[in-house]
Amino acid sequence: MGLVIRRGTVVNAGERFTADVKVEGRTITAIGADITKGSGDTEIDAAGRYVLPGFIDPHVHMELGFMGTVSADDFETGTASGIAGGTTSIIDFCIPAPGTSLLDGLAAWKQKAAKATADYSFHMAITSWGEHTADEMRAVVRDHGISSFKVFMAYKGAIMVDDHALYQVMKVAAETGAVVTVHAENGDVVWNLQKELIAKGLTGPEFHPVSRPSAVEGEATERALTMARLHGATAYIVHMTCRESVQALERAKLAGQKCYGETCPQYLLLDDRVFDAPDFGGSAFVMSPPIRPLNLGHHQALWSGLANGMLDSIGTDHCPFTHEQKKMGATDFTKIPNGAAGIEDRLAILYTHGVAGGKFSLERLVELNSTNPARIFGLAKKGTVSVGMDADLVIYNPEGKGVRSAKTHHSKADRSIFEGYDVKGSIEQTIVGGRVAYANGKLMAERGAGRFISRKPTHFAHQPEVRS
Amino acid sequence: MGLVIRRGTVVNAGERFTADVKVEGRTITAIGADITKGSGDTEIDAAGRYVLPGFIDPHVHMELGFMGTVSADDFETGTASGIAGGTTSIIDFCIPAPGTSLLDGLAAWKQKAAKATADYSFHMAITSWGEHTADEMRAVVRDHGISSFKVFMAYKGAIMVDDHALYQVMKVAAETGAVVTVHAENGDVVWNLQKELIAKGLTGPEFHPVSRPSAVEGEATERALTMARLHGATAYIVHMTCRESVQALERAKLAGQKCYGETCPQYLLLDDRVFDAPDFGGSAFVMSPPIRPLNLGHHQALWSGLANGMLDSIGTDHCPFTHEQKKMGATDFTKIPNGAAGIEDRLAILYTHGVAGGKFSLERLVELNSTNPARIFGLAKKGTVSVGMDADLVIYNPEGKGVRSAKTHHSKADRSIFEGYDVKGSIEQTIVGGRVAYANGKLMAERGAGRFISRKPTHFAHQPEVRS
Amino acid sequence: MGLVIRRGTVVNAGERFTADVKVEGRTITAIGADITKGSGDTEIDAAGRYVLPGFIDPHVHMELGFMGTVSADDFETGTASGIAGGTTSIIDFCIPAPGTSLLDGLAAWKQKAAKATADYSFHMAITSWGEHTADEMRAVVRDHGISSFKVFMAYKGAIMVDDHALYQVMKVAAETGAVVTVHAENGDVVWNLQKELIAKGLTGPEFHPVSRPSAVEGEATERALTMARLHGATAYIVHMTCRESVQALERAKLAGQKCYGETCPQYLLLDDRVFDAPDFGGSAFVMSPPIRPLNLGHHQALWSGLANGMLDSIGTDHCPFTHEQKKMGATDFTKIPNGAAGIEDRLAILYTHGVAGGKFSLERLVELNSTNPARIFGLAKKGTVSVGMDADLVIYNPEGKGVRSAKTHHSKADRSIFEGYDVKGSIEQTIVGGRVAYANGKLMAERGAGRFISRKPTHFAHQPEVRS
Amino acid sequence: MGLVIRRGTVVNAGERFTADVKVEGRTITAIGADITKGSGDTEIDAAGRYVLPGFIDPHVHMELGFMGTVSADDFETGTASGIAGGTTSIIDFCIPAPGTSLLDGLAAWKQKAAKATADYSFHMAITSWGEHTADEMRAVVRDHGISSFKVFMAYKGAIMVDDHALYQVMKVAAETGAVVTVHAENGDVVWNLQKELIAKGLTGPEFHPVSRPSAVEGEATERALTMARLHGATAYIVHMTCRESVQALERAKLAGQKCYGETCPQYLLLDDRVFDAPDFGGSAFVMSPPIRPLNLGHHQALWSGLANGMLDSIGTDHCPFTHEQKKMGATDFTKIPNGAAGIEDRLAILYTHGVAGGKFSLERLVELNSTNPARIFGLAKKGTVSVGMDADLVIYNPEGKGVRSAKTHHSKADRSIFEGYDVKGSIEQTIVGGRVAYANGKLMAERGAGRFISRKPTHFAHQPEVRS
Repeated sequence: MGLVIRRGTVVNAGERFTADVKVEGRTITAIGADITKGSGDTEIDAAGRYVLPGFIDPHVHMELGFMGTVSADDFETGTASGIAGGTTSIIDFCIPAPGTSLLDGLAAWKQKAAKATADYSFHMAITSWGEHTADEMRAVVRDHGISSFKVFMAYKGAIMVDDHALYQVMKVAAETGAVVTVHAENGDVVWNLQKELIAKGLTGPEFHPVSRPSAVEGEATERALTMARLHGATAYIVHMTCRESVQALERAKLAGQKCYGETCPQYLLLDDRVFDAPDFGGSAFVMSPPIRPLNLGHHQALWSGLANGMLDSIGTDHCPFTHEQKKMGATDFTKIPNGAAGIEDRLAILYTHGVAGGKFSLERLVELNSTNPARIFGLAKKGTVSVGMDADLVIYNPEGKGVRSAKTHHSKADRSIFEGYDVKGSIEQTIVGGRVAYANGKLMAERGAGRFISRKPTHFAHQPEVRS
Repeated sequence: MGLVIRRGTVVNAGERFTADVKVEGRTITAIGADITKGSGDTEIDAAGRYVLPGFIDPHVHMELGFMGTVSADDFETGTASGIAGGTTSIIDFCIPAPGTSLLDGLAAWKQKAAKATADYSFHMAITSWGEHTADEMRAVVRDHGISSFKVFMAYKGAIMVDDHALYQVMKVAAETGAVVTVHAENGDVVWNLQKELIAKGLTGPEFHPVSRPSAVEGEATERALTMARLHGATAYIVHMTCRESVQALERAKLAGQKCYGETCPQYLLLDDRVFDAPDFGGSAFVMSPPIRPLNLGHHQALWSGLANGMLDSIGTDHCPFTHEQKKMGATDFTKIPNGAAGIEDRLAILYTHGVAGGKFSLERLVELNSTNPARIFGLAKKGTVSVGMDADLVIYNPEGKGVRSAKTHHSKADRSIFEGYDVKGSIEQTIVGGRVAYANGKLMAERGAGRFISRKPTHFAHQPEVRS
Repeated sequence: MGLVIRRGTVVNAGERFTADVKVEGRTITAIGADITKGSGDTEIDAAGRYVLPGFIDPHVHMELGFMGTVSADDFETGTASGIAGGTTSIIDFCIPAPGTSLLDGLAAWKQKAAKATADYSFHMAITSWGEHTADEMRAVVRDHGISSFKVFMAYKGAIMVDDHALYQVMKVAAETGAVVTVHAENGDVVWNLQKELIAKGLTGPEFHPVSRPSAVEGEATERALTMARLHGATAYIVHMTCRESVQALERAKLAGQKCYGETCPQYLLLDDRVFDAPDFGGSAFVMSPPIRPLNLGHHQALWSGLANGMLDSIGTDHCPFTHEQKKMGATDFTKIPNGAAGIEDRLAILYTHGVAGGKFSLERLVELNSTNPARIFGLAKKGTVSVGMDADLVIYNPEGKGVRSAKTHHSKADRSIFEGYDVKGSIEQTIVGGRVAYANGKLMAERGAGRFISRKPTHFAHQPEVRS
Repeated sequence: MGLVIRRGTVVNAGERFTADVKVEGRTITAIGADITKGSGDTEIDAAGRYVLPGFIDPHVHMELGFMGTVSADDFETGTASGIAGGTTSIIDFCIPAPGTSLLDGLAAWKQKAAKATADYSFHMAITSWGEHTADEMRAVVRDHGISSFKVFMAYKGAIMVDDHALYQVMKVAAETGAVVTVHAENGDVVWNLQKELIAKGLTGPEFHPVSRPSAVEGEATERALTMARLHGATAYIVHMTCRESVQALERAKLAGQKCYGETCPQYLLLDDRVFDAPDFGGSAFVMSPPIRPLNLGHHQALWSGLANGMLDSIGTDHCPFTHEQKKMGATDFTKIPNGAAGIEDRLAILYTHGVAGGKFSLERLVELNSTNPARIFGLAKKGTVSVGMDADLVIYNPEGKGVRSAKTHHSKADRSIFEGYDVKGSIEQTIVGGRVAYANGKLMAERGAGRFISRKPTHFAHQPEVRS
């Protein structure tokens, strides 16, 4: 009834060794030099393969109502796409409309997520500040297994929070031990730049990055970290894209502040030449923060940060929209739904450009994509191949190869931002909760097999610096 | 009818030499080795004295309606106090109420200022953003000789601007060539900290600095500089008090941004032990940003910045309130009118602690207090002892000495924040517009002798960095 | 014949889980939820205990001839002291006299080390540069299992290398893939300051730190890192003690350079008040670089660096001398043999002040003291509790407690620099190569049981930056 | 007998005004609105022209024996070339051979300089450290009017000093109040890189910059500044060329260290494409440190440093060699005499690219090239147009134009590194010691008219930081 994975090279954040791995039910029960096969056990030969802990995607948006439409993958197709790409858990964002109840929002998101094929949790977004928000935040942490929040410093007029709300969220987070994830862009500036560009008739997708310059991200990062520091709260800056914001994070970390930074594969690998695509093709790459220009140090800052420890994790911001959906902004880039698919590309893309490309070790890849997300966000049974952990595993063949394409990926997205990218290595099998859910190109994800992961808060106020 | 100042050591920002200086009417007409005295000329023997350009105070608030009362010095007594302290020109802040006309405000301020005893100009404060604000800003610069604006990032609910207004002000400033002076503190945070402290019963003046930690100033400085950078505008951060904001300015300057920083004598010399004074005595020191704690690197950052060129000028933020006025906040520090007297202390205090104290040269003192304010703000006829310049001069005796005290100063303030401070050197004479207005302890300031100084804009947009 | 360690909480760099650990011979063969005991197996109950990978000390000097005497612990007593303190492997420094053969040196050191009770390797010191040095370096790496070198930028007139030698060492290291460990202090400056102090009659041990100010360490760190960068070599700065050198390392890392930093417990916990001890007691604390003054930011820089990832490992620089030996410098601090005991204190001291003190997690402690030294220096079978690894294990009881003292430690040192320090937790058992070598206070180290660890080079030239 | 310069716009470091300037003998005696012409006075109409203080070149090498030949300009032709370019004083370097007497060297240099056409002083180079060096340094300062020293950290095997000598020089300089000028490149590294390149057959002038990468300059700058800091000495880093060294200087200044940095026009304007010139043409650009590559941030760092105050002065390193001389290195770039002409180009080139190019104001140009060199090096009667100062003046027509070329310059150099550069403005007249020495293209420099300038030391030890 169980699995024995034979002779693979297990790679965790802090170790690499060759051994057999035994799975019983949903759990890893033994790792040994030569494990006895039980009756009914299935054997998988992993000789010459890496056995990795399943990747965790701390940043996805499944079936999100956003900018007048809904992201193209639901929790079933989105998590299934993830499984095909080596991702076995996700943390989605529950984003209640401003002024509505967090608890109602959570209920709605849980309902949508019930069809997920892999385990999931939610960051709870605070999109406005009201009389009951603090109490609801406390309830969410105490009673509902949610230990992270989200604030958007952009999207003015929609879900953007002002400094007052930001202050309050950080305060309650520090009190409850929750992490605050932050979308850091100055929404007021973006709003103005958008207006100015549209007024000048600069309406194409290539003006999307012009409306969100990197200075705007750097400023907001500094501000968010200051707000966190005032309360001893733990901030986690999501989808960092540029030199300025990495430097703000570096300054905070070097000064002793506990905080985290995340980036995404698209910000590492793409640059604003993508907007040269004809036929509104640039719309596929419209997301926020935007893909940055080349040669301004942004890509280098991100790669360095991943290697030197200043950045802590990698998510995908998976939030696909079809070309048809993108056409909502055909004559006004500010109306193009922001987002793209990515959950299925992450492992192969980063193995290729990060590990094979000499930027960092495979152990570090595991740490950035599995161990650290698990640790930071309290996924106690995830993030490492060890006894007692959930049997979420990826068997990766470094000798494999492939090409990323919308034609072959399992997302509902009809385009891939990595179309035609060659990758080194291949995912041979993905095991989710002890069950082979993907093998040799065949996806066997099971609707509803995913469970909600209840998480405990651990980031209580540290060294508040209010006195100064 | 003129003056001949004999054998003084003229000290300008970039030079020091011994010569005679001749004044005719309001103007310096000659500097020479041995100037012939005209009939009717008065001779002043300045041998062994320094002849300095009159100091300019770029940061004062005379008869300002603020926090429910009015600052204790009007334009007559305030400028007279300045003359006794070696200051011969001021730039006050015209602060129209939010939603009211800039031009109406200017007219009102000009009326108040007509009784000034020394020349004056105004920074125009933008306290809200409306449909006509941009046009009024343009008119003020084009037609009214005002080439600098002011924004307050603090004082929420009163004159604080939000990021949208800040963005717009910087944009119009860059277009018109005006400087934007910025009070940089995050008003939302201050507002919250004030509420929290008062709610806990922490109501004394010693909690004023606790409500405005230095991180709040550092954050706002970074934000203001980013806003300026987006437009290529020139920002001038007023009354900088702390390490964090100096570092934000350093980063901007080292990255090539054109921007300026100002500090005040009180932030260099005082620390938060002043709040230990009994009988509500700490209220005298309540101003914003606050006097900082010792030993956190703030004072060192300011002194270093003055010496190494990262800070550019020194103002006083002269805005006195009497003890009686301060009592408005007897049971709630947030109601204590913010401000103190300083215009009369600046030269002697800084000569003592800056020059005699070995921090910087006398030339640099002149540059920081006279030449740079003149240059930055476009006071074309001020800031240096040279031919054709206004005859605003200070004759300083380095062998003199004195003690700063409210008993002897000429401000209407009934307390001095430098009470009992010994100083080296003394102001023997102050010449204002060619007329001796202070001599050997006797003040002869003339009501209404001051003229409005019309200024031209020079800070047009430079290197905007919107692309990044 | 084997061991089964039951129900302990295994803590590796990237994970923490409760399981049984099975050891056969010298190797960990299985980790499982419920491991079957073989006949002849010994069971150890580790419930409520941590099971840690044995600590590795990358910085020790056993029976080192130095400054006219020999360090007090030989390879037997030194490694035994380590075992009692949770350290199960060491990397000593083979330091051939200037001008002598590296290979002869290695042979001599191997002979001395044969009596070691735990596994060992050597860093090979290059103390001069001659015609054959490059070839000997290559041979040492290729044929002798040594993949790290050492240079001393201090100790002028003895083992100090000049910039020419430093350049050459980095060059050959990059070519051969070896790491270069660096003692970074400017030896010329130290030599001069020593002369000046002695000439002034300032001869006591309290002048030792005065002769080696932190600026001297910062400068040398910058220089060493530059030399490494020129060749794409990997530098590892040993025993970092101060703000200046940490900042130099930070700059290099943030700019993308691959390099490492090590500190030691004494630099984290002690300050120069130790030199106040009467009766030449300060001599016990004479080591280089020196114990630093309090309140200058040095201790904070080190703790922060350990937490934020800028520092990578912790060694002890174990190199004890007895009080009698220290008296060689009774009238001249420059003649006091430099060094102190530390190998036995590291785990308990750092668990107490680092983990229990809230500076970092237990996982990070393991990473800094075991996993990272193993990875950086190529100890392929060390550094983690996993299948196939050497069975070097520590069973740590977090509920234990103790007091550090020379009276109870096992080193030959007659003083402890941590005398009287209370510690939290206790080492219950140390297992070395599958054999219990320390249990419940009883040391059962076996002379000669340690084996030489052959190491492979992995740090080949990366991104040389010669063009610039 | 005197001069009256009418209606020019005087531009000093801290002021700009229109006035008449009267010169009597060698001295400026009056500046006034309308100066009476004496009988015999010559009038010069300067309306619409700038009247600038004569530029001071703090970095030249006239008739220097170097690398087996002698620089092509002697003190007569070199200073005459300077006069044609607006430079009215020089500070040359007296460079006694290692092991020889400083005083003998000074005597020899004074003899060579007697034919100078403009005033001169010397920096005294310390090229080795011997028993009598300290005393000779003291004598040079005390008795010979020399208040600055020079050390070369490059040119190994010739005039390079080691760290011991560097330490001693800084120590004696701090004691005597002299500045230490520093050529900052790591000579050991350069020596090695040269050997490696030549051994590979890479012998052309294009490999000169490869042999001296910017990291080598950055390291040496850091080291020199550390050495100065240890003693509270004042270091002045000459001819800075790169980002790394500017950043080292920035760090020192921001930390409160008193130190200075100089760059040269060629490092601001040229890049390593100059080495593409055919027919050994690249040899003209061989100087040390080398011309840097484009796009690595070096040029930007220098321009920013000049504008933001981190760099303090500009010299030319005028040290021309003819093409024939350069051919000494026809088959080995390490034998190409290092140096080029520049003294005649500085003002026009920097007016064009600095002032007209919007990098900084004309006042700042004057400060960098005249006022600051005068202040830093103690040229008490130079650096400003004011009463009592030497009448060294330049009348500059901003409406003029020109083209730089070896065909028209007055140096003995047969090539110009700025050949074909268009410039804005023109030097109409240069007045040296009250005498028109250049007017409207005609050079009337007078052999021997230059006087030795005796200088007093002012840079006594400040805040030594030995304790740390």
